[in-house]
Amino acid sequence: MTIDRYRQVRSRTEALAAPLSPEDQTVQSMPDVSPTKWHRAHTTWFFETFVLEPFAAGYRPYDEHYRQLFNSYYEAVGPRHPRPQRGLVSRPGAAEVGTYRRAVDGAMVELLGCRLDDRVAALTELGLHHEQQHQELLLMDIKHVLSVNPLRPAYLPVPVVAAASGGAAAAGATGASGPRGATAGPRCPGGGSWRFHPGGVVEVGDGARGGFAFDNERPRHRVWLEPFDVSASLVTCGDWLAFLEDGGYGRPDLWMSDGWATRTTEGWDAPMYWERGEGVWLVFTLGGLRPVDPAEPVTHVSWYEADAYARWVGCRLPAEAEWETVAPEPDVSEPDVPQFPHPVPASRSPHAEQWFGQVWQWTASPYAPYPGFRPAPGAVGEYNGKFMVNQQALRGSCCATPPGHARRTYRNFFPPAARWPFTGLRLARDAR
Amino acid sequence: MTIDRYRQVRSRTEALAAPLSPEDQTVQSMPDVSPTKWHRAHTTWFFETFVLEPFAAGYRPYDEHYRQLFNSYYEAVGPRHPRPQRGLVSRPGAAEVGTYRRAVDGAMVELLGCRLDDRVAALTELGLHHEQQHQELLLMDIKHVLSVNPLRPAYLPVPVVAAASGGAAAAGATGASGPRGATAGPRCPGGGSWRFHPGGVVEVGDGARGGFAFDNERPRHRVWLEPFDVSASLVTCGDWLAFLEDGGYGRPDLWMSDGWATRTTEGWDAPMYWERGEGVWLVFTLGGLRPVDPAEPVTHVSWYEADAYARWVGCRLPAEAEWETVAPEPDVSEPDVPQFPHPVPASRSPHAEQWFGQVWQWTASPYAPYPGFRPAPGAVGEYNGKFMVNQQALRGSCCATPPGHARRTYRNFFPPAARWPFTGLRLARDAR
Amino acid sequence: MTIDRYRQVRSRTEALAAPLSPEDQTVQSMPDVSPTKWHRAHTTWFFETFVLEPFAAGYRPYDEHYRQLFNSYYEAVGPRHPRPQRGLVSRPGAAEVGTYRRAVDGAMVELLGCRLDDRVAALTELGLHHEQQHQELLLMDIKHVLSVNPLRPAYLPVPVVAAASGGAAAAGATGASGPRGATAGPRCPGGGSWRFHPGGVVEVGDGARGGFAFDNERPRHRVWLEPFDVSASLVTCGDWLAFLEDGGYGRPDLWMSDGWATRTTEGWDAPMYWERGEGVWLVFTLGGLRPVDPAEPVTHVSWYEADAYARWVGCRLPAEAEWETVAPEPDVSEPDVPQFPHPVPASRSPHAEQWFGQVWQWTASPYAPYPGFRPAPGAVGEYNGKFMVNQQALRGSCCATPPGHARRTYRNFFPPAARWPFTGLRLARDAR
Amino acid sequence: MTIDRYRQVRSRTEALAAPLSPEDQTVQSMPDVSPTKWHRAHTTWFFETFVLEPFAAGYRPYDEHYRQLFNSYYEAVGPRHPRPQRGLVSRPGAAEVGTYRRAVDGAMVELLGCRLDDRVAALTELGLHHEQQHQELLLMDIKHVLSVNPLRPAYLPVPVVAAASGGAAAAGATGASGPRGATAGPRCPGGGSWRFHPGGVVEVGDGARGGFAFDNERPRHRVWLEPFDVSASLVTCGDWLAFLEDGGYGRPDLWMSDGWATRTTEGWDAPMYWERGEGVWLVFTLGGLRPVDPAEPVTHVSWYEADAYARWVGCRLPAEAEWETVAPEPDVSEPDVPQFPHPVPASRSPHAEQWFGQVWQWTASPYAPYPGFRPAPGAVGEYNGKFMVNQQALRGSCCATPPGHARRTYRNFFPPAARWPFTGLRLARDAR
Repeated sequence: MTIDRYRQVRSRTEALAAPLSPEDQTVQSMPDVSPTKWHRAHTTWFFETFVLEPFAAGYRPYDEHYRQLFNSYYEAVGPRHPRPQRGLVSRPGAAEVGTYRRAVDGAMVELLGCRLDDRVAALTELGLHHEQQHQELLLMDIKHVLSVNPLRPAYLPVPVVAAASGGAAAAGATGASGPRGATAGPRCPGGGSWRFHPGGVVEVGDGARGGFAFDNERPRHRVWLEPFDVSASLVTCGDWLAFLEDGGYGRPDLWMSDGWATRTTEGWDAPMYWERGEGVWLVFTLGGLRPVDPAEPVTHVSWYEADAYARWVGCRLPAEAEWETVAPEPDVSEPDVPQFPHPVPASRSPHAEQWFGQVWQWTASPYAPYPGFRPAPGAVGEYNGKFMVNQQALRGSCCATPPGHARRTYRNFFPPAARWPFTGLRLARDAR
Repeated sequence: MTIDRYRQVRSRTEALAAPLSPEDQTVQSMPDVSPTKWHRAHTTWFFETFVLEPFAAGYRPYDEHYRQLFNSYYEAVGPRHPRPQRGLVSRPGAAEVGTYRRAVDGAMVELLGCRLDDRVAALTELGLHHEQQHQELLLMDIKHVLSVNPLRPAYLPVPVVAAASGGAAAAGATGASGPRGATAGPRCPGGGSWRFHPGGVVEVGDGARGGFAFDNERPRHRVWLEPFDVSASLVTCGDWLAFLEDGGYGRPDLWMSDGWATRTTEGWDAPMYWERGEGVWLVFTLGGLRPVDPAEPVTHVSWYEADAYARWVGCRLPAEAEWETVAPEPDVSEPDVPQFPHPVPASRSPHAEQWFGQVWQWTASPYAPYPGFRPAPGAVGEYNGKFMVNQQALRGSCCATPPGHARRTYRNFFPPAARWPFTGLRLARDAR
Repeated sequence: MTIDRYRQVRSRTEALAAPLSPEDQTVQSMPDVSPTKWHRAHTTWFFETFVLEPFAAGYRPYDEHYRQLFNSYYEAVGPRHPRPQRGLVSRPGAAEVGTYRRAVDGAMVELLGCRLDDRVAALTELGLHHEQQHQELLLMDIKHVLSVNPLRPAYLPVPVVAAASGGAAAAGATGASGPRGATAGPRCPGGGSWRFHPGGVVEVGDGARGGFAFDNERPRHRVWLEPFDVSASLVTCGDWLAFLEDGGYGRPDLWMSDGWATRTTEGWDAPMYWERGEGVWLVFTLGGLRPVDPAEPVTHVSWYEADAYARWVGCRLPAEAEWETVAPEPDVSEPDVPQFPHPVPASRSPHAEQWFGQVWQWTASPYAPYPGFRPAPGAVGEYNGKFMVNQQALRGSCCATPPGHARRTYRNFFPPAARWPFTGLRLARDAR
Repeated sequence: MTIDRYRQVRSRTEALAAPLSPEDQTVQSMPDVSPTKWHRAHTTWFFETFVLEPFAAGYRPYDEHYRQLFNSYYEAVGPRHPRPQRGLVSRPGAAEVGTYRRAVDGAMVELLGCRLDDRVAALTELGLHHEQQHQELLLMDIKHVLSVNPLRPAYLPVPVVAAASGGAAAAGATGASGPRGATAGPRCPGGGSWRFHPGGVVEVGDGARGGFAFDNERPRHRVWLEPFDVSASLVTCGDWLAFLEDGGYGRPDLWMSDGWATRTTEGWDAPMYWERGEGVWLVFTLGGLRPVDPAEPVTHVSWYEADAYARWVGCRLPAEAEWETVAPEPDVSEPDVPQFPHPVPASRSPHAEQWFGQVWQWTASPYAPYPGFRPAPGAVGEYNGKFMVNQQALRGSCCATPPGHARRTYRNFFPPAARWPFTGLRLARDAR
């Protein structure tokens, strides 16, 4: 833990917010989404509440109201502003939040410069990982905010290379329909291959490796696995078009009961942010609206859709332990961090199997505590443990994940109906 | 109609928005409320759609998207952005709306300078009255926006004189309880007197007087009235405290069935914006939170509350025709326009009976078409007529009404549960 | 008031319920609807609560729980079972409600036999009129209950004559479209004529005639009317088909704003209980599903639809006072009471103008208190007065109204979106 | 499979419905609940649809409408009546459903008497297990129906011995508060002991034992377990009172985030069917309202509550595999089937550890497919698999489970907020 690292993470948040106007930073387009300026303030509140107040001698809170206004869900800290009303609070404004950030940064740098208390270091480290998570949320949230605007404005212009992708996907075209002719079981998506594992007792979870991990990745423990294959590639938009053209959104036999009900209520007939253009499918990205690229990994699909797709193709989603057993560690020397927050085709990835840096990958596993799980002590123990029901686990990382934030044991989680994160999938199957 | 008058009304809107940040101008705190920048854009859209497009040769719309984004409810003009989502649109921002306004103003001034078409003059006049209505809405809407912020920020500082009012109202104090001892029937509120009218056939509605009126004020027509009294004063906060302390919010016999259900669901136990302080009632104003002043007219009460209050005191609300028959025309030489958008005690009013310039006064009359009513032709015919059900008529004007906008025949209307406008009441009774 | 009359009204309720199984009598198909056995119990509760308890010496309540279970909305009497949960109460069952009725009838007959207290007589009379209103509600409610059953069961077989009506209405057929060619203003519906009235001061409300009236019909009072015409016939299904085929359900310019929103939310495209058959419109009646008869009065239309229809045809709905001024008193010697609870064509009516006995007729008038209105004293004062907002007045009576219950001054009322009563309309227009 | 067994199971359903009136059998008190007569018809529909129609030569459906009306959720069979509207269908009535049952029974007995087709036998067996599940649902559903009736009627009188239980639980009494002083880790509930298991690879799921099992219990497979203890007793009402008195319902730190939100929205402060009497807690049972017996197993608690309780006491819920590894098979010679559908104290149970026949026991495991799971082919494949998300697994059986229906590998499942089934818990802990 160095002051440099603190400054680096904190300033990245401000850089992400920089292209956004005060108005952009104020809007909350649905209860799941938070305004940009709320993200900026809440991550600051985290350091103030969990580091400065208990450990910085003589520290006085910046504003008593902020304690409630920028608490997300920490019951132990006290009452909180209702989540669906985050978009109703015009003041403090974006600039005033900047002042708040700078004030807390000043106190933090002072504290980090003169003390070596282990708890301060650990909580600061946690705070930085927390802020990195909110950097990712900030991007997926502002994408939703911009998408509900009929003007469909862009967050940033797309870099030239990213715009120059392959052929667009025809909307309603009758192309390859149904699961493609597989010789030995279902074919792998996107022309990839399967990674076989013989099963048996494996060890998963954080413990064998140094460095930071969240409490929900521990303890490292043993799991029995049957033999299985996991795909060495992500499911692509082209794969998804085949599912869509085969009527996958209209066949209840492919869907979980809750998924079918959600699809019907919500009127889903394609991934989120897809819309029909003139004879072509369009997709809204952080760079604006453009044609769907069949070669890029599909994203913004719910667990219900991912599960239905896997059933349609005759496969299944991998279990968390299967994924973790087969996946590599992220490559530090050549990280999978895209230039622009949108997934790219495998051909343009540094690592063709795309385990990291493109889309969070839904697993078959409900998000539940590991055997022997103990939440972190104190209010920060509310970080992970209290969400361990009604959610599905995801693995990998995505195009909005900050550099250095991913790891093989990382456990992300969302409700099965969530589509606004950068969610996608890779397939698995029983090996017999 | 002169260019000067156009400029004067238009610039007043910008002056009202000036104290508000871009963030303030973006928020929509409930579906009934519109963001400030939406009001600024919509009033501009009105001139663009109803004046420039049909009458300014060669006029090109400023932005095709604005046609839909800033249409309020004119079905004849085409589709419109859903009302509850006005607060989700961050772009165009507040500054860009300013540019839009200036562009349309330029074209309007050019048009007004060179043509004398009667329809242009009439539609421009309508557009200015429309904009004045939105000036009032802007204030009542931003009041609601600021009120839901736990910081309770002020729109503007209160002028010194307004702040120096009389004694505060004790919260829960047992003062004068129950209807005050009346010698001959119910006493008049606030120590005022009754204005008697012998009834008979009277004429109401616009027609006898020159100048602008909305279509809903016409035609002038005859009505039969029985003898009645209308109070020469508004019901005050002090009067209301007596009602409140007598348990008026807890007695179903005083309330309409729908009103009682609304009170119960919403948890009403005082006017909107009142809250209990330490031993005193506080009220949120556009100048922030301060003690309730018993001498000032009560405001932010629904029709249900006004009706229950009148029943409690043994009176009733006046019918529209009764109000109009007894009320004076607004005094042009010394207008009832307050310095600050909050009602003041009668003692500080230029006209002690306070028919105008303080609070809109609920009447007993459902808002319905006058006999022989014809809506204005074309899309502007949607202005008034299509709301003539499920609403109650209000008369007078309020502390947020722009100078020169009030008149005796003016018919305002809101649903009976509305509380966020500056609504209040004066009493009436049968004279026998 | 005689014991015979008491017995006659009470036994008619039981006769109406007789064709219904215990299961039929238990179901509540929407919050507005009450189960049949609830109607039977509530009307009994009325006599027990307002007559027996205060006036029958030594009377002990039949069951303490019934006091709450069968109170409809009388706040003064105490708490009540929530209206939307009336269909969740399986006990007391239909047979036990019969026992309850007989027990109260025994006590009532005893009381009526030995006392002549005026208040007892007046409250019993009120109770019988109340029960007659519930007889009508019972029929319209059970119609809704049966209609939501996919089996579409009949309440009663249709009498032979009623079944043998004219030609069926083609669904989607392009017949007479648009308002029919009128020589002098809009044509009268169904080939009828207009009744002209020169206007001036008229008297309306109960007072000139002896016999029972509800408090809301009083006091008799003067009203000024402009010259007008009211149609001498009801709008028929054939008329309505022309409206429907002209796209009347798809033109917002014809509708009130609230009505258009309701139409859109609810998906209305025809009167309630109409459905498309094979090339023909079908209508669900208390005798089951059968083709729409163009000659019979249209029914089960909301005020919003009636108002839109009138606008489409270039007319308007009559005001209450207009209706009452032109309508006759119901004919006692040959009453307009149909054999079966469904409206019949004018040609099969005893009185061709069909002012009574077919459909309640929506008026242009919001339901509001008459000048000088005083509710009845005590809890029965909650009968009418507390509903005088958000409702529209209807006049006449309908095919489900019990014999002897109708009168010219009778004021019925429903919210403007209500369609499940037997509601229809007759037109009016300004006479110039 | 014999005709006798078919008759026995079928007639038990009718015996369970026998104490209920037609009105009782019609009501649906919430969407999760189905009317008794619907259960009776739906179980009949199952045999008609899956056995008679495909396998009985020349079989004609009893009523075409029933196909839709009594389909629960089988999409492959066709459309279905909306679940929340099951209580709106008064016809067919209870008696007519009896006729339907007898007609199908006649055809089934004929079919079973003359054929030996394996598929018929397997589907009939499935149909009987299906019907047994509905016997249990019928009881838990009618309990809810009766509970919402303010009269709180009983389904059946309580047998004498069951009524004569121990001391009642004081409401609000300050008894043993907090987790009781444990010598070596948390104390076992109800004075019981822990069953230790050393962990390692175990086998779970159906396969080692003959006889019927549902598809979701298969395949038998290996699981790695860490050493653990499972309690040899159920958590009792007395245990729960200590939790309640310690403020367990008011401490967010004990609850999952979704659970806390549900508790707050629903206003939970005790198990379902508990209510405060005069100084004592009362509980509504199928025998009516009576004092809570501290010695009997707690029931009608959600997973959220069970999970919070376990956390409060310093333990956790067992995983499915843990439960199955430690539990015995149900004792056929002396079954755990209570005389009356309500749990009894361990002292009155034939088997003191109460693994079966009292309450379904929540586990820590989300309900998910076993590795290698394959749904049954055809429409009956919708039986279990499509619910494998958003639910928690339960083990054991309950006081409403029919004789012979329970087994060690049985997997029941409900959403974590469900309380109306007979749900309870036993504790587990890591053994170190």
